[in-house]
Amino acid sequence: MNYRTVFHTVGNILVLEGIILIIPMLIALVCGESHALKGFLTGILVTGFAGFLLTRIDKKNEVPLARDSMVIVALSWISISIFGAIPYYVSGEIPIFVEAFFETMSGFTTTGITVFKDLEAVSKSLLFWRSFTVWLGGMGVLVFMLAVLPRKGGGKGSAVNLMRAESSGPQNDKIVPRTQQSAVILYLIYAGLSLIDLILLRLGGMNWFDAFLTMFGTAGTGGFNIHDESIAYYGSDYITIVTTVFMFLFGVNYSLFFMILTGKAVSAFKNAELRTYVIIAAASSLAIAANITAKYGSFFRALINSSFAVTAMSSSTGYIQEDYDLWPGFSRIVLFFLMFFGGCSGSTACGIKLSRIIILAKTVRADVKRLLSPHSVNIISYSGKPLKAETISGVHSFIIMYLAVFVVSVILVSINDFDMITSISAVAAAINNVGCGFSLIGPSGTFSIFSRFSTIVLSFDMLAGRLEIFPILMLFYPRTWSRY
Amino acid sequence: MNYRTVFHTVGNILVLEGIILIIPMLIALVCGESHALKGFLTGILVTGFAGFLLTRIDKKNEVPLARDSMVIVALSWISISIFGAIPYYVSGEIPIFVEAFFETMSGFTTTGITVFKDLEAVSKSLLFWRSFTVWLGGMGVLVFMLAVLPRKGGGKGSAVNLMRAESSGPQNDKIVPRTQQSAVILYLIYAGLSLIDLILLRLGGMNWFDAFLTMFGTAGTGGFNIHDESIAYYGSDYITIVTTVFMFLFGVNYSLFFMILTGKAVSAFKNAELRTYVIIAAASSLAIAANITAKYGSFFRALINSSFAVTAMSSSTGYIQEDYDLWPGFSRIVLFFLMFFGGCSGSTACGIKLSRIIILAKTVRADVKRLLSPHSVNIISYSGKPLKAETISGVHSFIIMYLAVFVVSVILVSINDFDMITSISAVAAAINNVGCGFSLIGPSGTFSIFSRFSTIVLSFDMLAGRLEIFPILMLFYPRTWSRY
Repeated sequence: MNYRTVFHTVGNILVLEGIILIIPMLIALVCGESHALKGFLTGILVTGFAGFLLTRIDKKNEVPLARDSMVIVALSWISISIFGAIPYYVSGEIPIFVEAFFETMSGFTTTGITVFKDLEAVSKSLLFWRSFTVWLGGMGVLVFMLAVLPRKGGGKGSAVNLMRAESSGPQNDKIVPRTQQSAVILYLIYAGLSLIDLILLRLGGMNWFDAFLTMFGTAGTGGFNIHDESIAYYGSDYITIVTTVFMFLFGVNYSLFFMILTGKAVSAFKNAELRTYVIIAAASSLAIAANITAKYGSFFRALINSSFAVTAMSSSTGYIQEDYDLWPGFSRIVLFFLMFFGGCSGSTACGIKLSRIIILAKTVRADVKRLLSPHSVNIISYSGKPLKAETISGVHSFIIMYLAVFVVSVILVSINDFDMITSISAVAAAINNVGCGFSLIGPSGTFSIFSRFSTIVLSFDMLAGRLEIFPILMLFYPRTWSRY
Repeated sequence: MNYRTVFHTVGNILVLEGIILIIPMLIALVCGESHALKGFLTGILVTGFAGFLLTRIDKKNEVPLARDSMVIVALSWISISIFGAIPYYVSGEIPIFVEAFFETMSGFTTTGITVFKDLEAVSKSLLFWRSFTVWLGGMGVLVFMLAVLPRKGGGKGSAVNLMRAESSGPQNDKIVPRTQQSAVILYLIYAGLSLIDLILLRLGGMNWFDAFLTMFGTAGTGGFNIHDESIAYYGSDYITIVTTVFMFLFGVNYSLFFMILTGKAVSAFKNAELRTYVIIAAASSLAIAANITAKYGSFFRALINSSFAVTAMSSSTGYIQEDYDLWPGFSRIVLFFLMFFGGCSGSTACGIKLSRIIILAKTVRADVKRLLSPHSVNIISYSGKPLKAETISGVHSFIIMYLAVFVVSVILVSINDFDMITSISAVAAAINNVGCGFSLIGPSGTFSIFSRFSTIVLSFDMLAGRLEIFPILMLFYPRTWSRY
């Protein structure tokens, strides 16, 4: 590992976090929330100072390798979650540091599981910080750094690798040849869509504060609730539908928006992953609507509720509008599996990602074809291009590790002795960064039932899910820590 | 597809089934069960005649290909389950043919799910037939045919392929160079172990009838109960422990027994899959015992119960001795995952098989190593030999299809509107050929709650699980059905 480069970059991220913390600090100041203000000031000072010290480390002329980027990403995310927890802890609103860390991790990883029991009692500035971590984590904190910090050396290669390590999906092509420009464009699209969502929410009668925070949760597909009733609090079909549409849009690969903006709409709509995403969302919404029509009187009303729940699950947002855990078995099972499928790669959605599901299906088809005609050559292509063997084996390894982490975590969490669906769906909610599950942690439940040990397991799952496992796995390999 | 060869071989299997049906017929005769006798006579005549007609089809000089073997295996299993259902149906003891088919399929696939509600009311001859299907299905009906029928032409290649298509696990090496000899040796080992189990059960005070049927269920790892209380009926620690040991042994790769018999015990014990099997069984038994000690008073008593449940699940037998569904969450979750892991390849146990789990773990390790040192060459070896790329991709495809069949089946079964664990564990019990699950289909529940449609889905899962998916999948490919 190139220790200097790694520490230097983590330092940059922390300095940036210190600067960003100024925004919620100002809110604390304006709202006169003195405890929170103390928390934010402490956070800014400690984070900024730690970051400053680390940036003093001279990178010299180290050439960072691809695997250094993975370590940078993993350590950056852990660091910002530790330092970002300071305001919750110092303000006294989350008196246990592990829980404050869990809340911050839940935010940055866009999971949306909360340790707060009464949201109406939380300081506004802390609520803002909490939702803002979702927005930042959604597109990626290192992508953010690449977009805002001037690059001084380090080579182009390292920037590309950083972006790859943090972005989601099996293939991360830059949308324009220059990496920094790609990061800027991605953030502009992200900010643009967020702005439209914000305005539409405001037009629906939300106050600015709620509109901002709801937008943060939607855009980052994190779904931190700001009211105990989540989206149901507003009791407005308009807000439900706007949120459904935007949860769906933020689960789409952003490079497709770029294609549409640059006049390549036709090829964007031909994208296999987008089509799969649309088909799955439509089919699930219609099937569940039919399943719950009896409960809601009309198919139309059922469809509003089912499409909200379907997009909340498949985009891994986890906002709640109706208690889907009271729906019939079929609806619950479909929602459960949607948690795993997730959205498109290159979006803020988490889960396995549909592009991987497509690649898995294609490898099986190629294997069966080989059995049928042993001498034929079967090239697996995706989006019109043949896939590299490396990409395919990467997807396979990803799935295997995902399942392994899932199984081990469920076993560890089951020590709490809750029912099986609570244990299984808690881990599913964490690793897929959805934030809500079934049974005891369903819409009417809370994650505060879990032990401290489970909290740590679930924190790990959230991070492993958001960073797609490899970067986190690297930390456990002794060879990663050897100098070169 | 070589239609003539396929039909001819299926005909052979049916003739054999007709002959085998004579055994339970004699029991019906001796016990004076006239309804059952009528059922068996009809079965013998119809099955024998259908088989005879098919064997009249001249194979000519067709050279069967590997994929023909897959079709032969798939169609053979479906055929014997249809014809084997006749005695249940004609005797009137299962008045609905689909349910009789389900019961037969459950037997041959060694699943052990039953549609009988009151086992004490079932004819002895039918109970015998039912448990005997488990014993036959355990080692494989085509392997049985290879072992007992003289081979006349068809080429050596076809016999090997038949055996491969029916045997379990990613790599099926013959234990001796000649295929028929291998089949004979496998059956001799199987019969020998069965005999020891039988004698030990008899020594434990069981009557011959119960001893035979319990042995059939143990050896085939099918676990059809002959009393409503399953193994708990005998209330004997001796029988519990004997059954635990033999469930475990029948989950071991039979080629290892051959190695031990031929003086290669040392290398047999070095087998990676066996070691994994032992470690998983021991670790799970101990962990669960610790988890349930409070319930049973002593660790020793808890260990007897936990090791029974662990081997019943991981060998996919599904015998029941204590109601594990009343155990704490941790125990239940561990048992649930053991259903999927299964036993060793080349045994009568079902599930994913540990050899596949090991290969999956090795491919991930190779992939991570490649990330750490991009220019190194990583060869994945298993049992000291490098694995072919084909084998690895076959394992990956298997897992993907297994999960796909699992997810789709759970969604279809969830239409019944039971709780999520019932739907999930019903499919797990069927596809892993375990035969019992959790919640409504736990030890105190019954599969008779499911709709006719679910019964068909679960029948499909049982067959797909036992034949390891590929042969069944082939039937759905139009190209399979084209002549050549």
